[in-house]
Amino acid sequence: MSEVWEGHRANAADAMVSSAIRELLKVTEQEGMISFAGGLPSPDCFPAGAIAEATEKVLATSAGKALQYGPTPGLMPLRELCAELLIGRGVRVGGDQVLITSGSQQALDVIGKLMIDPGDTVLVEEPTYLGALQAWRPYRPNCVTLPMDDDGLVVEALAERLANGLHAKFLYVVPNFQNPTGVSMSAARREALLDVAAQYGLPILEDDPYGELRYTGSTIPPLAALDIARHSQLRHVVYLSTFSKLLAPGLRVGWVTGPAWMLKRIEQVKEGLDLHTGTLSQAIAYEACRDGLLDRHIPVIRAVYGERRQVMLDALAASMPTGVRWTQPEGGMFLWCTLPDDVSSAEVFDRAIAQHVAFVPGTPFYANGGGDNTMRLNFSHSTPDQLRTGVARLAAAIA
Amino acid sequence: MSEVWEGHRANAADAMVSSAIRELLKVTEQEGMISFAGGLPSPDCFPAGAIAEATEKVLATSAGKALQYGPTPGLMPLRELCAELLIGRGVRVGGDQVLITSGSQQALDVIGKLMIDPGDTVLVEEPTYLGALQAWRPYRPNCVTLPMDDDGLVVEALAERLANGLHAKFLYVVPNFQNPTGVSMSAARREALLDVAAQYGLPILEDDPYGELRYTGSTIPPLAALDIARHSQLRHVVYLSTFSKLLAPGLRVGWVTGPAWMLKRIEQVKEGLDLHTGTLSQAIAYEACRDGLLDRHIPVIRAVYGERRQVMLDALAASMPTGVRWTQPEGGMFLWCTLPDDVSSAEVFDRAIAQHVAFVPGTPFYANGGGDNTMRLNFSHSTPDQLRTGVARLAAAIA
Repeated sequence: MSEVWEGHRANAADAMVSSAIRELLKVTEQEGMISFAGGLPSPDCFPAGAIAEATEKVLATSAGKALQYGPTPGLMPLRELCAELLIGRGVRVGGDQVLITSGSQQALDVIGKLMIDPGDTVLVEEPTYLGALQAWRPYRPNCVTLPMDDDGLVVEALAERLANGLHAKFLYVVPNFQNPTGVSMSAARREALLDVAAQYGLPILEDDPYGELRYTGSTIPPLAALDIARHSQLRHVVYLSTFSKLLAPGLRVGWVTGPAWMLKRIEQVKEGLDLHTGTLSQAIAYEACRDGLLDRHIPVIRAVYGERRQVMLDALAASMPTGVRWTQPEGGMFLWCTLPDDVSSAEVFDRAIAQHVAFVPGTPFYANGGGDNTMRLNFSHSTPDQLRTGVARLAAAIA
Repeated sequence: MSEVWEGHRANAADAMVSSAIRELLKVTEQEGMISFAGGLPSPDCFPAGAIAEATEKVLATSAGKALQYGPTPGLMPLRELCAELLIGRGVRVGGDQVLITSGSQQALDVIGKLMIDPGDTVLVEEPTYLGALQAWRPYRPNCVTLPMDDDGLVVEALAERLANGLHAKFLYVVPNFQNPTGVSMSAARREALLDVAAQYGLPILEDDPYGELRYTGSTIPPLAALDIARHSQLRHVVYLSTFSKLLAPGLRVGWVTGPAWMLKRIEQVKEGLDLHTGTLSQAIAYEACRDGLLDRHIPVIRAVYGERRQVMLDALAASMPTGVRWTQPEGGMFLWCTLPDDVSSAEVFDRAIAQHVAFVPGTPFYANGGGDNTMRLNFSHSTPDQLRTGVARLAAAIA
């Protein structure tokens, strides 16, 4: 009976399908399942008390404003707070250069809408963040994948493609503790990438949800910081970040900074999407963070996730069969396992579910297919005991 | 310096411009300005105490869930609560047929994305809700306008167009207290519209943010209710509503119901847009409303806005020069003024601003231009004294 609407759908509608992951996560909610599948922060690491206190204050002192429609670019005090966070990461911008988005995911959609005509080339890492592919699918890009190694994107491979005449709308990268691999782009690669971008006039979309969640090694400046150092302002880089991994994802508050033309256009498009990000969520994020909560809270998250990362790495080393390799992430929430070439992670998945442990098979992170022998493991959402038990079950499923 | 991104923009990007209204609202924030321009609910009508209490309870009892990522279709208890509200409006659906959106605005964007290829015809009322035009602009529809009178959309005009072979992707209507005119579609017209829809297989997008805000006259069933009565399920109608005018717009919580194919596709697309609507906002809306708050609160809003509507109507009757006409809305937040043919509301706007009263000139609500002698007046956001003073100033500006 739904054929009235279906028969009138847009051509692009057939490109819009649900992400494999969300479907798969339903399976992982079974009783007794240890799940390394989701991309969830640990609820133990939500500063719930501080958020409750902030909310009470907001509603007691400025309910009329926090519950009302708000400006499309976001509440100015929050934009200024985000600018301070950015300056702390070496990205020197003012509050008027920050737009608040409904999570970074919304920025991915808006940028796709602004930049991609059907058939346009978008450059992505292989593998890359699934949510970006999902956001852009309706705009029907031609995703061209670029190889990664333990130092992140192989910039030489990009340079070669561009030298051979490839024209791309932009390059999308997650340089810090990438989702899904956990790999970070080295400082030298970042400089080399900006050299290549300058040579070919290439726009770069830098997604940095995890940058503050470093557990070992030294901070590497974001591409946005390097871009400003070279040009005195953002020229090549549009930079996304979020409160989802620092405060709480349920607030859906992210932010974006970039060249002036992009910010103006993102604001115009966002107006048509949802008018503005929830005012109450924005007011809560501002009120919770204004007195330096993040300076106190981020070390707590780092301690918890850092331990979990080490537990998972130790458990993998202790129990994984020969021929299985995995990344050594210095931060973030994920690591990436590569099975022997002839082992299918989809088949391992079925055996793992039977053993009550879940992960995400790697294929959906490959824009153009492949990676059948890969898997993503999340270590932030399970306790150390669950990590140990889950890895043992997983090793048994693989063996 | 922003030419790197600008030079790579999509063709569609040039169709994305800021709405005239948001730009204009900046002018109206001057000190001493009485503004009939915004589309704002009155903050006096936000149930701030109930929202604060609900929030405290949510964060005390289920912070881990309310601050975490959530399911794309929304929290099930809230979906069920929306289904109960829908049943109260005669729209018999279950919670699994309701999707939560980030305000109704997001549903407009998603539906545009699913249905509109460049050049496709979308039918809209003349005038129509500006935010819908803004949401769809990136998809580059050909908007065909249909005339309205005091009974709403002139269905005969629609039937004639369709009989002449016009093929449209869907018809967009705001049948209750339309933004911008305040006019409602009569019951007879609604039945006639569904006859025409059945004859031509026409999808109808019904936007109903104001339906509960009736101050006089009798409730008219939504098109969705009539559609279900005819087909035992939603066939032609996708129906949008929101908590923005009942609770608070700052939560950004709306909802949509419609045929099964549409709901599945809307969910898939929404996942790429923002993963899900803010979990905390959803939990607050549910917790605040679960014990029947709306039954107690909607009468309060009706009393306040009903009085304001009457004050504005009386003031207009008392002071407007001959030749000025205006609608008599039975609910909602707006009324619509038509000046003599040779008077430009844009010129009146400049004189009105000088007199410290603001409104929205009508032209942006016309999908294809026109309406130079029209204006939208909001009566929900000003006090009775402001309404009287503002209308007197406006009459002076017109005279």
